[in-house]
Amino acid sequence: MSSNENQELSEVSVIGLGQMGARLAQAFLAAGHRTTVWNRTAAKADALVAQGAVGAATPAEAVAASRLVVVCLPDYDTVHDLLVPAGEHLAGRVLVNLTSGTPEAARQLAGWADGQGAGYLDGAAMSGTRLVGRAEALFVFSGSAQAFATHRAVLASLGNPVHLGTDPALASLYDTALFGLAWGALAGFYHAVALVGTEGVDPTVFAAVATGHMPFVTSLMSDHARQIEDGRYPDDDGTVEVHAAAMDHLVQASGVQGLRTDVPEVVKALLVRAGAGGHGSDGIASVVEAIRKGGQDV
Amino acid sequence: MSSNENQELSEVSVIGLGQMGARLAQAFLAAGHRTTVWNRTAAKADALVAQGAVGAATPAEAVAASRLVVVCLPDYDTVHDLLVPAGEHLAGRVLVNLTSGTPEAARQLAGWADGQGAGYLDGAAMSGTRLVGRAEALFVFSGSAQAFATHRAVLASLGNPVHLGTDPALASLYDTALFGLAWGALAGFYHAVALVGTEGVDPTVFAAVATGHMPFVTSLMSDHARQIEDGRYPDDDGTVEVHAAAMDHLVQASGVQGLRTDVPEVVKALLVRAGAGGHGSDGIASVVEAIRKGGQDV
Repeated sequence: MSSNENQELSEVSVIGLGQMGARLAQAFLAAGHRTTVWNRTAAKADALVAQGAVGAATPAEAVAASRLVVVCLPDYDTVHDLLVPAGEHLAGRVLVNLTSGTPEAARQLAGWADGQGAGYLDGAAMSGTRLVGRAEALFVFSGSAQAFATHRAVLASLGNPVHLGTDPALASLYDTALFGLAWGALAGFYHAVALVGTEGVDPTVFAAVATGHMPFVTSLMSDHARQIEDGRYPDDDGTVEVHAAAMDHLVQASGVQGLRTDVPEVVKALLVRAGAGGHGSDGIASVVEAIRKGGQDV
Repeated sequence: MSSNENQELSEVSVIGLGQMGARLAQAFLAAGHRTTVWNRTAAKADALVAQGAVGAATPAEAVAASRLVVVCLPDYDTVHDLLVPAGEHLAGRVLVNLTSGTPEAARQLAGWADGQGAGYLDGAAMSGTRLVGRAEALFVFSGSAQAFATHRAVLASLGNPVHLGTDPALASLYDTALFGLAWGALAGFYHAVALVGTEGVDPTVFAAVATGHMPFVTSLMSDHARQIEDGRYPDDDGTVEVHAAAMDHLVQASGVQGLRTDVPEVVKALLVRAGAGGHGSDGIASVVEAIRKGGQDV
């Protein structure tokens, strides 16, 4: 690892070179940005230095090397352990934190960074590691709007950077919410694959039709978001009662075919709860009311 | 309602003019096809005659009027009640049945139609009624490949017609499976909207980001279908164990914010079962194994 002794600033520093951190550094390098890297185990940094990165000897040196400091570490405790000793170098810099954590942890770190005179952006990579560096890789950021505007072009080396708002907690909140959304879709997909498989349909044959159907499902999300915002649920896409009956059919059909039925059953439970809450003849977006309402009764 | 006494055949007949049937007839008319219609209550047919359709006095007259006979009725009992008396007119025609029912009911009706000398296609409209007539409206069909090839161009008036295979049961099977897929995605979306809503994020603001994320989620379905087909689950998109921990975080975060947690809990249960089944360090598509395996233990 070479020491970063020359005075030329890098465009960006990356601290933490795990699977994601290494992909971030590679994407910055691929976009032609001078990139300084640091990692606790030097071998991972050496691999990037071989690809053109500048190696830093310490986290402080990495912070000092660039106006844009990207941190991607296993947890917030590690972030604190590494950054507190480097705090004096943060003034005038922007700290972008892609470490996974809670909204509250993001707010606390933002406050600490502010105390060091640094701008702060919390961030989350929403499209895994494989797509990093491609335009379809969604990266969400929240925190200082000015910091985002200043560094947007460099962050765009990673994919599609979206600024969610100035509350630093938003990136973590969206990260968790989008993870749940993705898993709802995947759980539905795996169940569907298992169901058609009982009649000998190949997963890839089904997937070709299913993926062609997803733009329609996605368009329902936009429509239903407007309905939820208005608190009015027209039945253009069918009523809660009709969907509950159809979901019961899916539960029955899945059971007959020897599958576990818990995925369609939880959807049926949502629809039944929405119906019991007075939404039986409303549109299906009213199901959100059956998620919002607290209490333990199911 | 005018009687169809002239000898000119229509391009297509539509029997059953409920919400969907009426949209089908309108789409055929809009595409410039001479269309004969019949409905038990004449008022719905009259409205279409006013738009240029030919009214039939009986189901038999509607069957006789076209080589392509589309049936869209409340249930299979109604299909039988109306078509059996018209059976003698079916020879040499193609019966397209868009009535919702079970795979077995579709196979039985196909057998009956074959006995009448008619080709048979079972079908399902996957995109609701609003999009009928637009290219993005998915219609799946199964049954006679020859019948589909002969009438594909006319069926394309309805949207995007896809032939799934010659087993007439496939359309019903896909209908049920795609319904479950759509609901998985919607349940995940509604939960996500509820979660971000607890921090004051508007549904439409979240939906703008979420819908931009769905093409990535959809691409995972294609990738994972290949993995399921191969029975090998690489961890490119994270391991079952890592996702289970993240899903537990979603369960906890949802509970703290006062939401019902059953949607993320069922996904967590899938991941826990997959892990218990030996897939903890496999990729997440291995969750399909936790759906396939029978038994009552959860």
